[in-house]
Amino acid sequence: MNQYRERIQDLLADYAWHLDNDKLEQWTELFTEDARYEILPRDNVDRGFSLALMACRNQAMLRDRVLALRVANEYNVHYDRHVIGIPKFLSVKESEVYFEANYVVIQTDQHGNSKVFSSGVYKDRVVLENGQLRIKEKKVVIDTFCVPTLIATPL
Amino acid sequence: MNQYRERIQDLLADYAWHLDNDKLEQWTELFTEDARYEILPRDNVDRGFSLALMACRNQAMLRDRVLALRVANEYNVHYDRHVIGIPKFLSVKESEVYFEANYVVIQTDQHGNSKVFSSGVYKDRVVLENGQLRIKEKKVVIDTFCVPTLIATPL
Amino acid sequence: MNQYRERIQDLLADYAWHLDNDKLEQWTELFTEDARYEILPRDNVDRGFSLALMACRNQAMLRDRVLALRVANEYNVHYDRHVIGIPKFLSVKESEVYFEANYVVIQTDQHGNSKVFSSGVYKDRVVLENGQLRIKEKKVVIDTFCVPTLIATPL
Repeated sequence: MNQYRERIQDLLADYAWHLDNDKLEQWTELFTEDARYEILPRDNVDRGFSLALMACRNQAMLRDRVLALRVANEYNVHYDRHVIGIPKFLSVKESEVYFEANYVVIQTDQHGNSKVFSSGVYKDRVVLENGQLRIKEKKVVIDTFCVPTLIATPL
Repeated sequence: MNQYRERIQDLLADYAWHLDNDKLEQWTELFTEDARYEILPRDNVDRGFSLALMACRNQAMLRDRVLALRVANEYNVHYDRHVIGIPKFLSVKESEVYFEANYVVIQTDQHGNSKVFSSGVYKDRVVLENGQLRIKEKKVVIDTFCVPTLIATPL
Repeated sequence: MNQYRERIQDLLADYAWHLDNDKLEQWTELFTEDARYEILPRDNVDRGFSLALMACRNQAMLRDRVLALRVANEYNVHYDRHVIGIPKFLSVKESEVYFEANYVVIQTDQHGNSKVFSSGVYKDRVVLENGQLRIKEKKVVIDTFCVPTLIATPL
């Protein structure tokens, strides 16, 4: 029996909703203060390497990164659309749930053309914090390591 | 607590199933008689415009449109396949539920080639009507406004 | 009331997880010993033909096929990523559940390029066997019959 199933569905829906609506500041609040967030290429992971394309060791680093996106970085204007699959629960404890969920991000350019931008899997550890389910660790393992454009916004 | 969660999953599954199996007449019955159905391009919505690519103000108009597809319009033969993401519940009341759900439609042409045809988000208001959950308002906000072919069949 | 809803979500998540992690041997154990597994092109099905691209009449044939993949066949190296939609329940009995679920498989080649490899629908009959939900029949009806490369790994 998994008492967190529905709350995790809600968390994943929240996650996609914040990113796709460009609510990046609020997106960082889905993480715990000490959360790790990493983007890793799949071929690296399969060969036992763990060199991340992006690594944030806490929520403050995530907020910094979002701030940089807002004020400094230049990148191609686009829309993202996350479609997240059914979560596979690997460990469900009172204190922490570990699950994986496939995702695909469809990206649309300024001319309204849509294509598969990234596919991969989320490997998430979530915990209860003051009654809220938050992400303590998220590894985004991406299949699409030959990204046609720089990964600017979070996956 | 959201007592409509499972019924809304079923409604979304029904929605996709009717469209992808070309059961368009029965698809219209998922809406209330006074339902609004609109397809809106995302860049329009973001800039505060609301010019719809398609707008039906009630179920009768939806039925008319389906009839037109059956008897009059010519369009390229294709298969659609809807994959709908986890719904994000924004307002859950006894009388009405408002949620949003990302979707991607993969379209396959006569030669069996598949590609991303449309990505976007459903913004749905659903109500209970004689014990059945029905769509009172559906806004399909499409990212893919540069559609390679005319949008003929509903999204 | 559908008492199998959550277990079927778990089964679908398991199904995708085993395939995408190349755990094909364990994937066969999701089926009953007498399970049928077929891949059928959609245009065939629509016209009433039932010529399968692949047909296994029991679990032993599935295991043979996986073994052949491991030791004999040569095929292009790739990663698969299954995203499965919300199941549409068509018949829910104590002894057997019949449902359909849309899927899309994103495939990534050795150079890290991702694209839509296959879209279609799973038509599944599942049963309880020693307290475990297992697949008794699975028809994979594929839209994408013009596959750019041979279907080597299961869908």
